[in-house]
Amino acid sequence: MNDTICAIATAPGVGAIALIRVSGPEAISLCDQLFLIKNGQKRLADQASHTVHLGQFQHDGYLIDEVVATLFRAPHSYTGEDSVELSCHGSTYIQQKIIRILIEAGCRMAEPGEFTRRAFSNGKMDLSQAEAVADLIASTSAANHKLALQQMRGGVSKEIDKLRAQLLHFVTMIELELDFSEEQVEFANRKELKELATKLEKNLRRLTESFKLGNALKKGIPVAIVGETNAGKSTLLNQLLNEDKAIVSPIPGTTRDVIEDLVNIRGIGFRFIDTAGLRQTKDEIELMGIERTYQQIEQASVVLWVIDSTKYTEHIEWMASRILPRSQGKTLVVLLNKVDMLSKDEQLVLDEQLKAYSPHRLLISAKKGKNIDALKARLLEFAGLPDLARQDIIITNLRHYEVLKTAHEAICRVQEGMEEERSGEFLSQDLRTCINSLGQITGVITTDEVLGTIFERFCIGK
Amino acid sequence: MNDTICAIATAPGVGAIALIRVSGPEAISLCDQLFLIKNGQKRLADQASHTVHLGQFQHDGYLIDEVVATLFRAPHSYTGEDSVELSCHGSTYIQQKIIRILIEAGCRMAEPGEFTRRAFSNGKMDLSQAEAVADLIASTSAANHKLALQQMRGGVSKEIDKLRAQLLHFVTMIELELDFSEEQVEFANRKELKELATKLEKNLRRLTESFKLGNALKKGIPVAIVGETNAGKSTLLNQLLNEDKAIVSPIPGTTRDVIEDLVNIRGIGFRFIDTAGLRQTKDEIELMGIERTYQQIEQASVVLWVIDSTKYTEHIEWMASRILPRSQGKTLVVLLNKVDMLSKDEQLVLDEQLKAYSPHRLLISAKKGKNIDALKARLLEFAGLPDLARQDIIITNLRHYEVLKTAHEAICRVQEGMEEERSGEFLSQDLRTCINSLGQITGVITTDEVLGTIFERFCIGK
Repeated sequence: MNDTICAIATAPGVGAIALIRVSGPEAISLCDQLFLIKNGQKRLADQASHTVHLGQFQHDGYLIDEVVATLFRAPHSYTGEDSVELSCHGSTYIQQKIIRILIEAGCRMAEPGEFTRRAFSNGKMDLSQAEAVADLIASTSAANHKLALQQMRGGVSKEIDKLRAQLLHFVTMIELELDFSEEQVEFANRKELKELATKLEKNLRRLTESFKLGNALKKGIPVAIVGETNAGKSTLLNQLLNEDKAIVSPIPGTTRDVIEDLVNIRGIGFRFIDTAGLRQTKDEIELMGIERTYQQIEQASVVLWVIDSTKYTEHIEWMASRILPRSQGKTLVVLLNKVDMLSKDEQLVLDEQLKAYSPHRLLISAKKGKNIDALKARLLEFAGLPDLARQDIIITNLRHYEVLKTAHEAICRVQEGMEEERSGEFLSQDLRTCINSLGQITGVITTDEVLGTIFERFCIGK
Repeated sequence: MNDTICAIATAPGVGAIALIRVSGPEAISLCDQLFLIKNGQKRLADQASHTVHLGQFQHDGYLIDEVVATLFRAPHSYTGEDSVELSCHGSTYIQQKIIRILIEAGCRMAEPGEFTRRAFSNGKMDLSQAEAVADLIASTSAANHKLALQQMRGGVSKEIDKLRAQLLHFVTMIELELDFSEEQVEFANRKELKELATKLEKNLRRLTESFKLGNALKKGIPVAIVGETNAGKSTLLNQLLNEDKAIVSPIPGTTRDVIEDLVNIRGIGFRFIDTAGLRQTKDEIELMGIERTYQQIEQASVVLWVIDSTKYTEHIEWMASRILPRSQGKTLVVLLNKVDMLSKDEQLVLDEQLKAYSPHRLLISAKKGKNIDALKARLLEFAGLPDLARQDIIITNLRHYEVLKTAHEAICRVQEGMEEERSGEFLSQDLRTCINSLGQITGVITTDEVLGTIFERFCIGK
């Protein structure tokens, strides 16, 4: 942590401008050697923090580029160290050249996330805030942008610190009793302690449970589109995608070669999963595809069952027997597609007949775009979204979820222990587990291994 | 030009940081409304030029991102106007959101190159320097980087201005004579004028002729690899590419679906063109491929003829009759490939036999990498490179080349006119053509149409 690091901080490739970050004890003196302020005798090293200077980045007497250098003096920088940001012409040749020269001059190429790791180490932010920086950079919708921003600004940390402070008070009282154990005193009012434990358990449960939603908001709410081969699944998907092409991006499939598409509906990301058509078959390869479809249904929050309303009777019972059991605990929406081919009366009869399968039905025409807006509105409704304006803390980070689960289990054991009037030692031990777990979220307690895992997922330059 | 423009200036995609540029009369007041300096009552609009401020970019009371804003006050900015640069977290969602908010607040999305066009209009740089900015951003090798940098720093302009000043002096004298035409005076000493015209013609010729090299350096020196189908052309290309993987990039083919590969050899870009194998055939599709190969030979500066030395005799005469006539005026290098399969004696005999085809021969093994370094050294030699350290002005821009040609033709007509002792009117007209042409390079004389064509090729944000 005592060396000076450098990295390209802007997106890879050619742009008008690229930004190169240098941070560490030698950042200013190193750049002072390589960068000459234009038209003057002034030296970069003599300038004030938070000032900007046009000049020449030179090497061995050769001009490399005309750049703008911004000076940040410790501790008033992102990392908390002396830092220089060089804004150069965005040719990849120039970017690489400058990085090479900086390394030659004594910088080290930064590891992924190392600037943010240094910010954490220097107390500029806690661990949960640092993690939010990566989420913020990866944000793709209003929802996950908002959650990341809330966490980066310390929303999660504040909530955790509050819980932790209450637990610390609790455990101090219990441990004080232990010191005086021979005298059988009770510093901690058992009634108050029980109330506090109940409150803490409730809060920890709420936070833990918020992860399911937080994770869905972060990654996009998974929606499986299922149905028979020609029911119009792909047409529907294309309709949903076409509506907002600019913010649609394909997510490369995992091992199962599934292509998912992320669609932004009023600020919420939805991951639409087009599945293989379901039908009775003995073809082994097709059966494997159908097996995959079943797995996808299980991973989805919302299942859209697309039915060709012009020939829905054929295998409807068989289909229902496959889809319904796997949609338990999810929202199943029956989409009666191709309704433009039916009369009004036929539509009504059909809708009535399919009532048995789900309370949620929509008459659509994927091809003509009929009722697609209504479908989107229903998706927003079924997604069970929180009122994001309410500022409830929502956990989006798997690591936070894991430690919160440990903390929650520990507080449950504390509650049990109090019911059973166990000794203070037992209570104290579980309380300490709970406190330690919460400390891991903000990074009060941490290990190099945990930090390594967190920051290796950052991009270089952040 | 009186409105305020904004654009993302960094490469498209996700990065640690993205930079958004705002420039124009309202740049500071617009950003002042949307950006709040952290921890304080200070307002952006009250801050000094060339200062940097951490704060919050907000919209309708919602925080969009924590950003760093840099203030540049006119005329001390890139464009010469009031400017603000916002450095935000590099999520594409955040980038687009900020741009949308700026546009809603009254900015206009910048046209490609509009920041540089404003810099030109505000006298921050001349036209040739502005054009060099685009070349600098596109630079991929030490050579084209150096040429772009030289032009951006005014090297070309200085040379052109010098020539133009001499011409202006010349024409003034001639035109003064015209004013006193009835008195038959000669203000311009004809001998001196002839000498000056000779000097100017020589300089303009040198500049015009430098374009061939300048263009090759800018785009990469074209090298065609030709030979029979299994001679080892692709293996050779892979060898050349593998040597320097980091700076190799495929150039997407033009209409002819040709894939070219750019390789950087000691700072010089070479465009290697792998061609279809040549052989006697009646297959129409194959014949079209061979026809294309011929065209590629004609466009190359260097032709590498790869011969399989284990079976070179078979069609060597036929091959030579196809390749030799098309390599006139280029450097043809005969590469005897697969020499690792031959004895030393066989190699010598072979080399001797192929002397007739080219003075440049190399015994190589593409597969084993034998003599690839020697080939690279020869390529650098054959490319006819200038001594870039000598600071000779080299023209790399097609537009400059075109107007220099016009200027050169005009000065030749002046020389002829003086030989034939034509009247001052004739001389004056050609001199004015010459002066106007040169003025178009630096943009002293220009039209909206010319400017439009130049700047539309820039990227947005520059």
